[in-house]
Amino acid sequence: MTQEYDVVVMGAGPAGENVADRAVRKGLTAVIVESELVGGECSYWACMPSKALLGPVAAVDDARHLEGVGGAALEPAGVLDRRDRFASHWKDDGQVTWLTGAHIELVRGQGRLTGPKTVAVDGTELRARHAVAVATGSDALIPPVPGLAEAKPWTSREATSAKEVPKRLAVIGGGVVGCELATAWQALGARVTLIARGQLLGGTEEFAGQLVAGGLRAAGVDVRLGASATAVSRPRPGGPVTLTVDDGTTVEADEVLAATGRTPRTADIGLETIGLEPGSWLDDVDGTLRVNGVDGGWLYATGDVNHLALLTHMGKYQARICGDAIAARAHGQEPAATAWADQAAVPQVVFTQPEVAAVGLTAAQARAAGRHVRVVDYDLGAVAGSKLFADGFSGHARMVVDEDRHTMIGATLAGPGVGELIHAATVAVAGQVPLSQLWHAVPSYPTMSEVWLRLLEAYGL
Amino acid sequence: MTQEYDVVVMGAGPAGENVADRAVRKGLTAVIVESELVGGECSYWACMPSKALLGPVAAVDDARHLEGVGGAALEPAGVLDRRDRFASHWKDDGQVTWLTGAHIELVRGQGRLTGPKTVAVDGTELRARHAVAVATGSDALIPPVPGLAEAKPWTSREATSAKEVPKRLAVIGGGVVGCELATAWQALGARVTLIARGQLLGGTEEFAGQLVAGGLRAAGVDVRLGASATAVSRPRPGGPVTLTVDDGTTVEADEVLAATGRTPRTADIGLETIGLEPGSWLDDVDGTLRVNGVDGGWLYATGDVNHLALLTHMGKYQARICGDAIAARAHGQEPAATAWADQAAVPQVVFTQPEVAAVGLTAAQARAAGRHVRVVDYDLGAVAGSKLFADGFSGHARMVVDEDRHTMIGATLAGPGVGELIHAATVAVAGQVPLSQLWHAVPSYPTMSEVWLRLLEAYGL
Repeated sequence: MTQEYDVVVMGAGPAGENVADRAVRKGLTAVIVESELVGGECSYWACMPSKALLGPVAAVDDARHLEGVGGAALEPAGVLDRRDRFASHWKDDGQVTWLTGAHIELVRGQGRLTGPKTVAVDGTELRARHAVAVATGSDALIPPVPGLAEAKPWTSREATSAKEVPKRLAVIGGGVVGCELATAWQALGARVTLIARGQLLGGTEEFAGQLVAGGLRAAGVDVRLGASATAVSRPRPGGPVTLTVDDGTTVEADEVLAATGRTPRTADIGLETIGLEPGSWLDDVDGTLRVNGVDGGWLYATGDVNHLALLTHMGKYQARICGDAIAARAHGQEPAATAWADQAAVPQVVFTQPEVAAVGLTAAQARAAGRHVRVVDYDLGAVAGSKLFADGFSGHARMVVDEDRHTMIGATLAGPGVGELIHAATVAVAGQVPLSQLWHAVPSYPTMSEVWLRLLEAYGL
Repeated sequence: MTQEYDVVVMGAGPAGENVADRAVRKGLTAVIVESELVGGECSYWACMPSKALLGPVAAVDDARHLEGVGGAALEPAGVLDRRDRFASHWKDDGQVTWLTGAHIELVRGQGRLTGPKTVAVDGTELRARHAVAVATGSDALIPPVPGLAEAKPWTSREATSAKEVPKRLAVIGGGVVGCELATAWQALGARVTLIARGQLLGGTEEFAGQLVAGGLRAAGVDVRLGASATAVSRPRPGGPVTLTVDDGTTVEADEVLAATGRTPRTADIGLETIGLEPGSWLDDVDGTLRVNGVDGGWLYATGDVNHLALLTHMGKYQARICGDAIAARAHGQEPAATAWADQAAVPQVVFTQPEVAAVGLTAAQARAAGRHVRVVDYDLGAVAGSKLFADGFSGHARMVVDEDRHTMIGATLAGPGVGELIHAATVAVAGQVPLSQLWHAVPSYPTMSEVWLRLLEAYGL
């Protein structure tokens, strides 16, 4: 059986959903192919459940740092119930209802390209009149540590969906997933050991990782930096797991979480039928997320699978642009260059304690890119709003200024409660607002956002 | 005795301190005259103590709305201790140390202008070479309700510094002070009745006041809208006070808070010696905060006293501009027009439960100003970050767009925890970032800041 649509989308995560939604809103027909749950990784095994776990942890931690507030305590069973609710109990009825309301067709099953503009799902052939968008996402990467795969490690999936708190948890990897889930499970009662090859949160400003390491240690996590697991063994299924670490020690735990990166979910989607390499990132895309070098320009890649920025909000952003571009081209128009995806202002919030929020370039990235920069630092704890937020507040803020353009090109905050502060910088970076004009954007007193004023004052305005 | 300085500043609140600081940093000498505590209303009887009271109230309220967090409770004695600490126990040693470090002279006493560029303080005459800046602030206004003044009402001063929680508190006035302090004292154990002539938070979008009224009522406050106190009596000093209300009821309370506005602190500062009206607002100022119509242009007015925006952060903003302008003119330069104070992006955060945060124009204000606007509304509770922030989150967001310029000119948020979200809109409004460029400012998922994306989507981007 062959069905024809204007757009065929492979993968019903946030990126795929947004591509289809934007295309349909602009008058096209669209079908989404999904082999697992509609809603994708984010809804069931990443953002939503992890933040559902971490919200109560933050609230208790923040409340405990306020004289005049007593008694706040985590109730692990309640936190897990809350997490189950935010993961919709791993059922996708709500998302399917949304698809229906958005007039997007759904075909369940493993989709595979069989040639240009054609995707097969079991017995059905889906033909795209205009475009196929790959939004299949990424999987956790299990690093090649001897014995690790056999020890049945947790990935981000198990670590966001586990029904019980392990007594002891070993975490391999000091990136966002490792740091966030170490924070959550330690707070929920596990004794966590985190093993990181370098510093924590590599790729962000160094102070952020240092503050997070301090927070994890204060919470009781055994943080080992500059260390690697060289072997893992779990002699008995369900029994304890032992990690051999290259600092000469061993770590015994009940579960081990592999949090060492992602791999593209492209191994089994038929890329070979159109001359692309199965298992590779679809990372050669233009600003409309169209894959370069494909005859006829009908293939797009949005979200994790293009490796531009493995973040739900950036996948959705790309998807809006991609869906709009597909629709524009279907109507014979070429999208304006101003509508192309911009990588200058990618924000990220890490929901550890303290939180980390960053956008744009770090000082090192800006210098490596040959930009003429000035770096401005400020003690976030010196801001009145920070002192009010938490007694003994400790945090730090950095702004990176392009001295040729006189604009902010990067900012990083680390401290309790900073997650909602970063969007102001994202607007400044994406909007290329000159510092002389930012000077007139007055933060309300006494909010923590006053740090943006302090940074400008420290710059010399 | 006569002393000469480049700048004489009357009033050592945040506005006065910033005028002097900026002038000194640019090479001038400055003296500040202060009859009360250095640091001003904000440090001892407004922002700092009120937010020190309200922070724990918010933390407990937020924690109680999270499944998985148990036991959070307010400890009133601890909250009052915290408040005392944030008010520096009503001692200004820290502020005086700051003045000294900033090379600003301090003269204590009541300053009075005695003629152009001359201020007398007790026996001392201070002569200004270049400028006198009035930053004397404002006092609480006691409305002419029969018996109110005799009943010794609380003003914002007593309501932020009281050492004990009254059993019953009547609040006259539904503005920011009335709403915030009703929130605080109700949470601390008082039974609060709030009497407001109109809706709450007049001047902001109506939904904000409605949500705050709902929050106050849910907390147990007896909120009476469209009602006025027509008489007040406290027959016995220290005894209960009775309010007669024009809805035909009476309210008995132990304290009554008059929160009905402010009056300029200019009655006794010698304005008559330079041809100005004592007791009036110094509201005829230019964009450098220079008072118009004064021969020689040596008089400036910053902060509450000029009635532009009775907010600490706007007073400090004006003060930075004023201090810079005084210094520039002392050095023979006229400040650039781009450095003049801008009133287009005045932000305000109201620390009630729910919080309210707004910047720029309301829909009504924009229409009244003849702007061609489009108003975009969004249910703040529908944002993933809001759901994660609080179970059963209720809130609302509005964006006002100038359709001719294609920019945001106003925004209002009401909901728990929105205070830190507004600065992103302040940057967009002050930076006049076109919506088509704001579209590339992606909020991090799943933060509450995603409401800014939702508003742009709802607008039709």
